[in-house]
Amino acid sequence: MKATARAHTNIALIKYWGKREEALILPTNNSLSLTLDGFYTTTTVDFREALSQDVFMLNDEAVTGEAYQRVTKFLDLIRGLSGKTDLYANVHSINEVPTAAGFASSASGFAALAAAGAKAIGLNLSDQELSRLTRQGSGSACRSIYGGFAEWEMGTRQDGSDSYAVPIASKEHWDIRVAAVVLSSTMKKVSSRAGMKRTVETSPFYPGWIESIPNDLNGIKAGIQEKDFEKVGAIAEANCLKMHATTLGANPPFTYWHDTTLRVMHTVQEMRANGIPAYFTIDAGPNVKVLYLPEDEARVEETLRNIAGVTDVRLSKAGSGITYL
Amino acid sequence: MKATARAHTNIALIKYWGKREEALILPTNNSLSLTLDGFYTTTTVDFREALSQDVFMLNDEAVTGEAYQRVTKFLDLIRGLSGKTDLYANVHSINEVPTAAGFASSASGFAALAAAGAKAIGLNLSDQELSRLTRQGSGSACRSIYGGFAEWEMGTRQDGSDSYAVPIASKEHWDIRVAAVVLSSTMKKVSSRAGMKRTVETSPFYPGWIESIPNDLNGIKAGIQEKDFEKVGAIAEANCLKMHATTLGANPPFTYWHDTTLRVMHTVQEMRANGIPAYFTIDAGPNVKVLYLPEDEARVEETLRNIAGVTDVRLSKAGSGITYL
Repeated sequence: MKATARAHTNIALIKYWGKREEALILPTNNSLSLTLDGFYTTTTVDFREALSQDVFMLNDEAVTGEAYQRVTKFLDLIRGLSGKTDLYANVHSINEVPTAAGFASSASGFAALAAAGAKAIGLNLSDQELSRLTRQGSGSACRSIYGGFAEWEMGTRQDGSDSYAVPIASKEHWDIRVAAVVLSSTMKKVSSRAGMKRTVETSPFYPGWIESIPNDLNGIKAGIQEKDFEKVGAIAEANCLKMHATTLGANPPFTYWHDTTLRVMHTVQEMRANGIPAYFTIDAGPNVKVLYLPEDEARVEETLRNIAGVTDVRLSKAGSGITYL
Repeated sequence: MKATARAHTNIALIKYWGKREEALILPTNNSLSLTLDGFYTTTTVDFREALSQDVFMLNDEAVTGEAYQRVTKFLDLIRGLSGKTDLYANVHSINEVPTAAGFASSASGFAALAAAGAKAIGLNLSDQELSRLTRQGSGSACRSIYGGFAEWEMGTRQDGSDSYAVPIASKEHWDIRVAAVVLSSTMKKVSSRAGMKRTVETSPFYPGWIESIPNDLNGIKAGIQEKDFEKVGAIAEANCLKMHATTLGANPPFTYWHDTTLRVMHTVQEMRANGIPAYFTIDAGPNVKVLYLPEDEARVEETLRNIAGVTDVRLSKAGSGITYL
């Protein structure tokens, strides 16, 4: 009863920023992402009758505490679905998502865990079922089931049965690239989870954010189909700015931006003024991701590496969905 | 028919950020400011029968173009009120508001022009009437009629007759200080006037901004009466962050912040973490103003001067309203 799966992280172009239900992880809006080939997690799950508890090894070290609790709670879901509630698992994960790059390793982590765990215990889930299961471990992870572009449909049901990701376009459809810009200082004072919650509960801008999503989604999906890079980039950048604007209205207000974050943002806008189409997006942290086209890779990388306060630039193509090894 | 008046600039603690009527300069919300002693304009207006047109000298240089048109259009209002529509004026202004400090010289400029012009032509206006007149030259200037803290009541009438500033507390009531932090790069791509207009017309956050104002105003006015510096500072800082958040949602989005702006903001927040009560506010530009108490002046000034990208720090106390020289 053993299986190994690999899942890649994803970067949201239309952001997930708020839950309508905490326990089931049901979002307040649809979101849309690009899965990236550069950052991934490979996880082996081995259910055994001889075990008296779950064991979780991450990069060859035993994990305890809150991270362990999240994994074992997620394995409970898998055990529940299969009816085999008396089994425990050895979970062994290798994470190729450097924390400093500012990607949430929980996206690739929970997608790989869900895929390997479900296969190991003998569940035969559709992508949709797997995405719905994954969502309950980490919201944005439900989009990492698919390669290329995926949309997480928020759903409307209380039980979350209609809240899962669907594929929008494969990675073969369009070769667009992402540079992860790593900053020397990556401290953040407010976690994503806490920041999201505080924003939903206190920001006067939250209703405006929610109202603006359908138009952004329609536009970006049309842009992806048409391979209109300027349209996709401009919508992604504007959507990210709106997400970050909501935090400035929270009580107390906060921002994930550092001075270098703003310097990278302005540099990307200058690149556009100089004829290189490049657009930024930023998640709940100071790091910046830059969207660009393959033909501009060398110039984009060089420009980003020359910004004061930038320590590394990691380039990615669009990545695959779940693969079983 | 000659008079000289001096007016000081003011810094808004609750921001004016949007017009409901362009021509009469009627705002979408009440705003509240502190008049500063450090930055002022002294203007002499001399109405003479011998003149065939208005002359406007600023810092001993003749002004033409758009700035001249704004002044002569404003003198038309004064002529209209007095019934003496056949007189032209020599206007001589000395501006002690360095552009680099990021203060709008239009606030002190139009307040001094209104006061000197009205007196020169023989109008005997109350402060309220003078504030209402001044508003039609430059919105925020209507608050510079008073020293200390003033509130611009937006009014509800179409003709603007109930839109003027009122005094909230004199400069003697409370000695709080403002440091104007001058940045090496002060370029802004979007003027205040254009930025305000674009935000009102396109930002999904604008309704949230407007809804949040009454609570901020009630809180800050209570804080001023109680001399509760932390309350006043926290509300002013949060209000400024909300104003700047609205621009991130505009179409196309924009920000007035530079990397140094963010560095100053974080430094002010660090000062608070280190026990020095200091709060920032930012207008439609990259410069930052820092509120502090007299006993912290030396430490605040030194800390601000040591920030990379800061070229000067100018300190002010609360200032007087209009004075006639």
